Amino acid sequence: MNIKEKHAKRIKNLRSQKGLSQEALAFEANLDTKYMSDIECGKRNFSIQTLEKIVKALNVSVLEFYSATIF
Amino acid sequence: MNIKEKHAKRIKNLRSQKGLSQEALAFEANLDTKYMSDIECGKRNFSIQTLEKIVKALNVSVLEFYSATIF
Repeated sequence: MNIKEKHAKRIKNLRSQKGLSQEALAFEANLDTKYMSDIECGKRNFSIQTLEKIVKALNVSVLEFYSATIF
Repeated sequence: MNIKEKHAKRIKNLRSQKGLSQEALAFEANLDTKYMSDIECGKRNFSIQTLEKIVKALNVSVLEFYSATIF
């Protein structure tokens, strides 16, 4: 699994834990829904600013985000 | 401090802990030295793939990288 796929899996996992739809997460993170969908498909080599938006929208710390064995 | 500056500070800190020059880190991470310098000046909104290259070059896990109060 490459880094994009690892992030995709982790984001999807946290999002469902929080009971958020993909659209709701995109809205919270101020990201385009198509872009969010691509991210969750492991297609996007997104930036640290986008990472920060997603992590904040998921309401977890960056440390918590990366505290998964997948990384 | 914004997310670019936080990453800059953490990278610089880990690099000096490891006794690496900026050029040596750039070489290890297969990044251009000017780009590496910009990253350490907090000027670059770099990607997760670049993050992965830097973290591997610093020989730390992603989790260890983000296990700093700065984040």
